Amino acid sequence: MKVHGKPMRTLWVETDGHSVGIIDQTRLPHAFATLRLTTLDEAAHAIRSMQVRGAPLIGATAAYGVCLALRADASDGALERACALLQATRPTAVNLRWALDEMRRALRPLPPSERVAAAYRRAAALCDEDVAINRSIGEHGLGLIRSAWERKGRQGRVNVLTHCNAGWLATVDWGTALAPLYLAHEQGIPVHVWVDETRPRNQGASLTAWELGQHGVPHTVIADNVGGHLMQHGEVDLCIVGTDRTTARGDVANKIGTYLKALAARDNGVPFYVALPSPTIDWTLEDGVRDIPIEQRDGRELTDISGRLPSGEVVTVRVTPEASPVANYGFDVTPARLVTALVTERGVCAASTEGLLSLFPERRPARETGT
Amino acid sequence: MKVHGKPMRTLWVETDGHSVGIIDQTRLPHAFATLRLTTLDEAAHAIRSMQVRGAPLIGATAAYGVCLALRADASDGALERACALLQATRPTAVNLRWALDEMRRALRPLPPSERVAAAYRRAAALCDEDVAINRSIGEHGLGLIRSAWERKGRQGRVNVLTHCNAGWLATVDWGTALAPLYLAHEQGIPVHVWVDETRPRNQGASLTAWELGQHGVPHTVIADNVGGHLMQHGEVDLCIVGTDRTTARGDVANKIGTYLKALAARDNGVPFYVALPSPTIDWTLEDGVRDIPIEQRDGRELTDISGRLPSGEVVTVRVTPEASPVANYGFDVTPARLVTALVTERGVCAASTEGLLSLFPERRPARETGT
Repeated sequence: MKVHGKPMRTLWVETDGHSVGIIDQTRLPHAFATLRLTTLDEAAHAIRSMQVRGAPLIGATAAYGVCLALRADASDGALERACALLQATRPTAVNLRWALDEMRRALRPLPPSERVAAAYRRAAALCDEDVAINRSIGEHGLGLIRSAWERKGRQGRVNVLTHCNAGWLATVDWGTALAPLYLAHEQGIPVHVWVDETRPRNQGASLTAWELGQHGVPHTVIADNVGGHLMQHGEVDLCIVGTDRTTARGDVANKIGTYLKALAARDNGVPFYVALPSPTIDWTLEDGVRDIPIEQRDGRELTDISGRLPSGEVVTVRVTPEASPVANYGFDVTPARLVTALVTERGVCAASTEGLLSLFPERRPARETGT
Repeated sequence: MKVHGKPMRTLWVETDGHSVGIIDQTRLPHAFATLRLTTLDEAAHAIRSMQVRGAPLIGATAAYGVCLALRADASDGALERACALLQATRPTAVNLRWALDEMRRALRPLPPSERVAAAYRRAAALCDEDVAINRSIGEHGLGLIRSAWERKGRQGRVNVLTHCNAGWLATVDWGTALAPLYLAHEQGIPVHVWVDETRPRNQGASLTAWELGQHGVPHTVIADNVGGHLMQHGEVDLCIVGTDRTTARGDVANKIGTYLKALAARDNGVPFYVALPSPTIDWTLEDGVRDIPIEQRDGRELTDISGRLPSGEVVTVRVTPEASPVANYGFDVTPARLVTALVTERGVCAASTEGLLSLFPERRPARETGT
């Protein structure tokens, strides 16, 4: 999508043919700065420190992390060590594992001398696949937004609430939850996005608001506490969020607080959609609340907030009393029963085992296929 | 309750016999500072700028604002002007109106020469009544906490979630929602409080955490997004919040985001209690979602956050992109159907017309009493 009027992706190979360019997302929205990754450790650090974040972009960055590792040492051992190091950076992100598995599968059969070039080809293909998947999610989700617009008799605007950042900054391009909104905006449907601030890391206030603003999509930033009130008063036509991990029956792990919005949506008859690329489906899990481990993150994300002084300097300030303990859970799980539909690259389906299998029949257990 | 180990109230008459001392709550938790109010305008400013906040403390401060006004001019006109000015400072706070009505009722019949002394007596009585009411709410709420403790077989700790600040800082002493917790703590029941940060003004992170910490009550600050996740995992035994305004059928207006926690409580079978002094009941309203006007506040509360630099200096930083609009709703309404019970100074009742009338039979419409 656009930055300062110019289309760009969130990750690219630099003109030297091997360094990897990224946007340092920790500096948004106050500064737009890019970084050049040249080693495995830099790639791992970029993921761990959330310079890149969002499940698809983490996967893409990890794939290029393998490329950078192999340039230093293309042995079997180095490949395994690189994958293990990258896997440990964000334990909740299922398509980090998926991207690393793809790289390993493509590279292990090759002789070490061929691995570097093949790794860059495979990483580039993963990125292009992510863009194609997101574009496709956008097209399927666009139908839902167009329906909402028709239901309103094409009057006013379509008010969409989103939580966290599942925009192009979380992917290689387009985004997942925001892809339908970018397409709707481009097609002249007057969308307006309520952007949840998304404490404690403020991804909504800092990233979603920034990218929508750069692309010219009307939006309003609200505290995470506000969505319920807006839904009670008819100010939300639909919700759409992303997910880090979806179980085989449609439970979705997403940024902490998503569950609360899903409850409010159900209480007010507002459709609640979850957009996801199929690599984030974890077909091995059923009960998300029980089985998805929830990352606990550094308490300083909650106690300390960074922002810009009137002078322009970006500083970090302490908000809570020094003596008060804090707890910082990264995600929560929204049970499938609260999800109106899942929006995938193959289409829209019910958030249920049957719904998912209708779009991904190859996942149907063998005994059910009659073989 | 205690500050630096010493018991104090949130509002007092200074040794000069007429100035009014308050804690400047806008400076908490980073600095504990008191202010001396000497004029009506200073009292109005203290309310408007949230140096004092919380429905009962606003009422008490307004009562003393009338005292300060009458010292300058004790005429009928001055009394009316003072009440009108103070009423306009916070339109949502129903017991601001109640306190002003009480003052007017006590003072209007008196000759101007007697009004100042009478006003100070009446304001002091209102403060003492608030303390007595809160202590009584505490005793009734204590029963609910003790029951939760018994249900756990007196094992572990009683985990209580609260939103915003309905503690002693919001009242003259004890608090409403926190009064039962202070009593439970004093009686040796091991309570632990999950303190919602409470964006956008961070009253939980800055005030509730500070006052619980000063009094030695175990607590943990969490983002507003976290409560649902904790409830899904059995980490919350009960919720208790305050309210700015309760309708005759038990709908409660409280700090924005309360409704979302009530939804999560219902979804997880967690009791959701609302503590209230009866002056905050608005007997003229039924449907809170429809009829309670919701204050929209300055967007800078959301875009700008103040905190302490490592140097100790308290500064305000901008969090959101300059170009992004924001909306800032102060309150939401939790429908009575989501409230397990109301805790008042007269006891605990169902959140319903019948429940409230059972405790306040004098409010029963005349035709139903057989007269």
